[in-house]
Amino acid sequence: MKRYVYAFGGGTADGDATMKEILGGKGANLAEMARLGLPVPPGFTISAEVCRFYYENDRTYPGELWEQVDSALAALEEKTGKRFGDPERPLLLSVRSGAAVSMPGMMDTVLNLGLNREVAEAMARSSGNERFVWDLYRRLVNMFGDVVMGVQHPFFETEIEKAKREAGVEADTDLTAEHLKALTERYLEVYRDHTGEEFPEDPREQLRRAIDAVFGSWRTERAVKYRQIHRITGLLGTAVNVQTMVYGNLGENSGTGVAFTRDPATGENVFYGEFLMNAQGEDVVAGIRTPLPIGELGRILPECHARLLEIREILEKHYRDVQDLEFTIEEGTLYILQTRTGKRTALASVNIAVDMVSEGMIDRKTAVRRVSPDQLNDLLHPMFDPRAERHPIARGLAASPGAAVGTVVFDAAEAEERARQGDSVILVRQETSPEDIGGMNAAAGILTSRGGMTSHAAVVARGMGKPCVAGCADLQVDAETRTATVAGEPEPLVEGEWISIDGTTGEVMRGRLPTIAPRLGGKVDTLLSWADDFRRLGIRTNADTPEDARRAREFGAEGIGLCRTEHMFFGEDRIPAVRAMILADDEAGRRRALEELLPMQRSDFEGIFTAMDGLPVTIRLLDPPLHEFLPLEEEQQREMAEKLSISVERVREKVEALKEFNPMLGHRGCRLGITYPEIYEMQVRAIGEAARNVLRRGVSVYPEIMIPLVGTAEELRVLRELTERVMQRVFETEGIVDYLVGTMIEVPRAALTAGEIARHADFFSFGTNDLTQMTFGYSRDDAGVFLPAYVEQKILPADPFVTLDRDGVGLLVRAGVKKGREARPGLKVGICGEHGGDPASIAFCHEAELDYVSCSPYRVPIARLAAAQAALGED
Amino acid sequence: MKRYVYAFGGGTADGDATMKEILGGKGANLAEMARLGLPVPPGFTISAEVCRFYYENDRTYPGELWEQVDSALAALEEKTGKRFGDPERPLLLSVRSGAAVSMPGMMDTVLNLGLNREVAEAMARSSGNERFVWDLYRRLVNMFGDVVMGVQHPFFETEIEKAKREAGVEADTDLTAEHLKALTERYLEVYRDHTGEEFPEDPREQLRRAIDAVFGSWRTERAVKYRQIHRITGLLGTAVNVQTMVYGNLGENSGTGVAFTRDPATGENVFYGEFLMNAQGEDVVAGIRTPLPIGELGRILPECHARLLEIREILEKHYRDVQDLEFTIEEGTLYILQTRTGKRTALASVNIAVDMVSEGMIDRKTAVRRVSPDQLNDLLHPMFDPRAERHPIARGLAASPGAAVGTVVFDAAEAEERARQGDSVILVRQETSPEDIGGMNAAAGILTSRGGMTSHAAVVARGMGKPCVAGCADLQVDAETRTATVAGEPEPLVEGEWISIDGTTGEVMRGRLPTIAPRLGGKVDTLLSWADDFRRLGIRTNADTPEDARRAREFGAEGIGLCRTEHMFFGEDRIPAVRAMILADDEAGRRRALEELLPMQRSDFEGIFTAMDGLPVTIRLLDPPLHEFLPLEEEQQREMAEKLSISVERVREKVEALKEFNPMLGHRGCRLGITYPEIYEMQVRAIGEAARNVLRRGVSVYPEIMIPLVGTAEELRVLRELTERVMQRVFETEGIVDYLVGTMIEVPRAALTAGEIARHADFFSFGTNDLTQMTFGYSRDDAGVFLPAYVEQKILPADPFVTLDRDGVGLLVRAGVKKGREARPGLKVGICGEHGGDPASIAFCHEAELDYVSCSPYRVPIARLAAAQAALGED
Repeated sequence: MKRYVYAFGGGTADGDATMKEILGGKGANLAEMARLGLPVPPGFTISAEVCRFYYENDRTYPGELWEQVDSALAALEEKTGKRFGDPERPLLLSVRSGAAVSMPGMMDTVLNLGLNREVAEAMARSSGNERFVWDLYRRLVNMFGDVVMGVQHPFFETEIEKAKREAGVEADTDLTAEHLKALTERYLEVYRDHTGEEFPEDPREQLRRAIDAVFGSWRTERAVKYRQIHRITGLLGTAVNVQTMVYGNLGENSGTGVAFTRDPATGENVFYGEFLMNAQGEDVVAGIRTPLPIGELGRILPECHARLLEIREILEKHYRDVQDLEFTIEEGTLYILQTRTGKRTALASVNIAVDMVSEGMIDRKTAVRRVSPDQLNDLLHPMFDPRAERHPIARGLAASPGAAVGTVVFDAAEAEERARQGDSVILVRQETSPEDIGGMNAAAGILTSRGGMTSHAAVVARGMGKPCVAGCADLQVDAETRTATVAGEPEPLVEGEWISIDGTTGEVMRGRLPTIAPRLGGKVDTLLSWADDFRRLGIRTNADTPEDARRAREFGAEGIGLCRTEHMFFGEDRIPAVRAMILADDEAGRRRALEELLPMQRSDFEGIFTAMDGLPVTIRLLDPPLHEFLPLEEEQQREMAEKLSISVERVREKVEALKEFNPMLGHRGCRLGITYPEIYEMQVRAIGEAARNVLRRGVSVYPEIMIPLVGTAEELRVLRELTERVMQRVFETEGIVDYLVGTMIEVPRAALTAGEIARHADFFSFGTNDLTQMTFGYSRDDAGVFLPAYVEQKILPADPFVTLDRDGVGLLVRAGVKKGREARPGLKVGICGEHGGDPASIAFCHEAELDYVSCSPYRVPIARLAAAQAALGED
Repeated sequence: MKRYVYAFGGGTADGDATMKEILGGKGANLAEMARLGLPVPPGFTISAEVCRFYYENDRTYPGELWEQVDSALAALEEKTGKRFGDPERPLLLSVRSGAAVSMPGMMDTVLNLGLNREVAEAMARSSGNERFVWDLYRRLVNMFGDVVMGVQHPFFETEIEKAKREAGVEADTDLTAEHLKALTERYLEVYRDHTGEEFPEDPREQLRRAIDAVFGSWRTERAVKYRQIHRITGLLGTAVNVQTMVYGNLGENSGTGVAFTRDPATGENVFYGEFLMNAQGEDVVAGIRTPLPIGELGRILPECHARLLEIREILEKHYRDVQDLEFTIEEGTLYILQTRTGKRTALASVNIAVDMVSEGMIDRKTAVRRVSPDQLNDLLHPMFDPRAERHPIARGLAASPGAAVGTVVFDAAEAEERARQGDSVILVRQETSPEDIGGMNAAAGILTSRGGMTSHAAVVARGMGKPCVAGCADLQVDAETRTATVAGEPEPLVEGEWISIDGTTGEVMRGRLPTIAPRLGGKVDTLLSWADDFRRLGIRTNADTPEDARRAREFGAEGIGLCRTEHMFFGEDRIPAVRAMILADDEAGRRRALEELLPMQRSDFEGIFTAMDGLPVTIRLLDPPLHEFLPLEEEQQREMAEKLSISVERVREKVEALKEFNPMLGHRGCRLGITYPEIYEMQVRAIGEAARNVLRRGVSVYPEIMIPLVGTAEELRVLRELTERVMQRVFETEGIVDYLVGTMIEVPRAALTAGEIARHADFFSFGTNDLTQMTFGYSRDDAGVFLPAYVEQKILPADPFVTLDRDGVGLLVRAGVKKGREARPGLKVGICGEHGGDPASIAFCHEAELDYVSCSPYRVPIARLAAAQAALGED
């Protein structure tokens, strides 16, 4: 006969901690604690397999179930010396749900099962605590009515309020036994009125219906929704725990509390918790009385306190992790009701992991596995004080983490101006463009009403480590009137108003929320250095400036995986030459303008090479379409015309001529290099000359020249030839620097024909932003309109711009790696899309046998940890 | 010893017609004719392998070459009884290039080699025709100087003009022997002045240098360019033909001519050609004297004529195809100088192929192979009279074939207005948009300054079978002033001016060129019906209206592969409802507007189903982004606001809100169906109700509902469910119509995950336009800026929007077919991109085992033929 029911208590148990799948987390740990000899109130767990059976068989139960429940109940009666429904020695039970993964939203708890009028009256007589018994009974009717039968709680609440008014008392506790007995009668009436039937007096029927209610609650809308949101899949269902009741409210030597084996906020190795004497668990939660810190228990009930400390030791040693436990003291006897892994802050997480290694409790691998990479983020960015109340007026995408507070500005120049005056500003725009870089850099945070996780604003903000809320659709920005209306808010946001934005949650608040500074410490470094020992993936960074490069290096970057040269083109001192180049009528004119740019690009590269002394630097040649460098607004066009001494019509004509329907798929990347080779020639020359110059100063320099947007092998062949020709000329006179020439794989066709392309490439770097755009046919700037709905409706498991799509884009990456390495064994392969900083995507990169990932500086620590976990995942 | 030299003549030859690769086309056919016993002037051919050796070995020759030439020359002297350089019995030779593929642009011919002053004087004495000999000599000096030594022809021309002036004569033929002798001296001086050396008197040196010049000309810029343009690759090089001279200008019983074994214009089975008595080949070409029709030869030289007719029979029977031959009669003796497959018009091509089958000369397979599918195009569209002179002022892409003549109009409404008044108009625009459909339909032809082969203008024009020249970059259209400037033209094109555009060549001419009507006849049908017997691919059409459907059906379409429902949304009676739907604030508002559209869509489908009675109709649900339906111009926005009784600001806001950075990758296709299910619900309902209604009238209806732009299996699952739900409701009351639900595979990810997607699809249709855009990352509307350069520089072998890219896009198609059929055996798979009408792409579709191709109505016959050729290609 298949076993569906597992008993525990009295030093033994049918199950153990490994059986979470069928016993649920709570049941498995109760069994484990019973085996450890801990004082667990005895009981039994009904397997989650019953839940599966229930839904697979039209909400019916296996034939043997109730038989097994009955014999478990009989054994329990034996063990406790009490009997279920026996007025003389009544056994009272609780019923709780408990799945393998903790999950609010399901039916939770029914207490005091086994009471009925007869039992209650007998107990009231024999216990000498009549008030207590009627309180238990009225609570049973209330909970059973609410949870099992769906009689809403307020109906009961009304009655107790009425009772208190009639009795002329304020608190529930002031009600006497008589009052409570009468109240119980009223509750039974409420129950009858709303269910159309009498409250079940038969304890076994109470038990059955409570169990039934737990299984039935597995598929309520709330529960299903919760599992969807948290991506909980693959569970059998929930288990049901039936357990002997113990009471913390039986007098001054009774009590109840919760404790963590270490401080969950800081990770400090101290016993941390609180308790209330003469109280039930719900009283601790309700917050009406102020609980005492756990240390006080030593004063009140020193034996119980000592036993608790013992149990703390036993549990931590046994589970080798911080435990979050619940206990009840019934008339001086300590019971442990639950233990589970303790939730903790990022800081605590790191500290505990490192401490436990020095304490010899866990090894380094375990420590590295213990800390979630995404949590590390919290240590790198300021956050809002969690104690502060927040009233979000709008919510967008959590595009770049951290908290920012500042006054609203609507244009980039204004942001720079105000920042110069020492103001903290939030740049609020419909979307940002490369022209806004200065203002973005000056702002404390960025808020946009359009664009997705990889929109310009989001990408640049992450690169800068600056909080950003993007694609906040409820916002309507009107840059002209310098206001932004917010759906549902009567007043628009106006320039100069204070707002607070949370790039970690996507929330936007009016006013100034208090923030707390990031905390980084030696233990993070320790943990990351262990991670470095385990990971196989290299970690590089995407950095366009010496400052970014230095910061990333401090965070542990082992090179630059993507240096975007176009960002250098936007500098105030360069943009006139860039525009002159674009407006030139012929190659000669373009070359003249490029000559002006050459020394500036060279000095950019010198700075970056110097910052990355000894490490490789991958430089991507010009990528964006040229129209991105021209001004769209009339005034700026006029200015530009004046500066270049040409007519404004000429400027306008050029802007018009360069306009593209789909710039993403337009004249950009290596297509520019093919049609205007002189641009790439200048850039390669600047790289070569910069390398030569810094080498002269003793810097070890490893340039890797990367050709973007290659779709055919021939493009790369032609541009590699150009690169080699220019480099040869540079190194003719002095100093030879070894360099590599490689390509981005970001066009689907490049992945498909990677074998051909690899013949001309020293390395591949997967540009998974663009690869995702083209593989899905999603413009990252436009997808904000439907992508959130897609994720919500589970059409996609996740935003593919955040977590690399294994099934589609991942196939192309794997094919690209395979074909590339077949054609050129040992080909170096990395990734430089935004996915390089996402833990799930990093795990994929590890599996796909990439050599490195490259991410924004602030995600380097996260990537180090994620890469280690990916490697350890294979053990 | 390797053979480099192959002799022919006197009834035998070392080579034959199969040896084109090494002997070139001309040489192989000379050998073949010699073997057939035809009167070929004897000679020898130097193998193209020598050409390869020459370029692989730094422009040197194999050691044995000159030895072999010498002995071939000796044998030739033996055969002719003459000797090279012998003043008494001089052998005169011609040297001609000849590769395996006919190819202008290389060095062509040097005649009369073997002459020098000594030989000339001796010949002048012995022949009794002094004038003739000096004429030969001066021609040799001219040709040798020009072709071998690069002395430009005008230098010689100046001298002959001077000579004529001095002699007081008008025509070359009026110059006497004396004049010509003196002229020869002058030519020798010109030669000396320009080359710095004497004209080589040694005949063997003349021969060597002429041979050398032929090999050297293989890699001249012109020749290389020609091969690039015509995609001629894989050749060894050119062969060199050295042949005994014969002369058609030795008197009144000499002559020369060209002939086709059948009429190359009509294909009629008559001997067709022309000749000149007492003339050389070049005189026929030069067009100074008017040649006589070949029949006249029977009167002048009946024996030669009879022999020629015999030879016609022999050649056609032997080659089993029309031959284009050159002949010379030297003093009553007929010589055949060349034969090759005769070029012919489309009409001739079809007629000859069909005739030859009935004559038993070739089988049906051969006939089907003989006609080039692209040529068929000419039979379906009017063309300009080839005799008319054309002076193109600009050239764009040959986007939709045919000739159109009309007056220039710059906007669509104007085009409709003028057309209503009976004018023939050419719609000239920067580019067209869906709003222009009415005007495009009204115009005789369309000319755009931007956009590629699959731009809106091009696609729609091909669908309408209307001539279109697209992406004409020399044109600058100014719609406001209603003029268009043309690069290089002093006067702009103005509204109302007559122009002629050739969609077959891409040329634009001022004024009205005469056109000739298309000719379709029974023989085309015969040929196509044979093709139908051989092809395995089904042929469907892309059609959006009953008229298109009917036309395509007449052309042999076996169903509709793509019916674009959005084209129906643009009708004047529908667009207000469409716009109301877009502007609605909520689902209820959208549903109200959709209710209005429902009866119109239903009647559209009824029309199409009826036109395609008995054949399947694949209907694609709404695909384009909604902003395409909103007007961009202020005036139209105002009109729209009035019609909908809302503020113009509201309209503007919506237009602004729907704007996309990359509409191609935006909120369109099934993404609309997911976010606004009510739109697809209305369309499905219209399809279902239309099907039910026509069924009631006895029409056999096979609807196939196609969901566009699917990228994930889940999208299709959800929308299939929607479709089935709506259909169930429609068929609840009466009539059940079987229908299929399938999807476009046009997003790379769809091809990559085709296995998953196939689980919800009854069919796949590859949308290779979008698939090409996304796989390459090319926006078809923007790629015009670099794509021509890419094709020219051979970075791409062809425009991938014209011919399907086998290496990249093709891989995805193959993967999609494989994965799809693995998951669902027997899955129906087709293609409905523009490639469905391109012969090379059709061959690919055949290989990839697709079930059908779908193309615009006018390409259906072409597709039928191409599909047959693809199938025959596998024999």
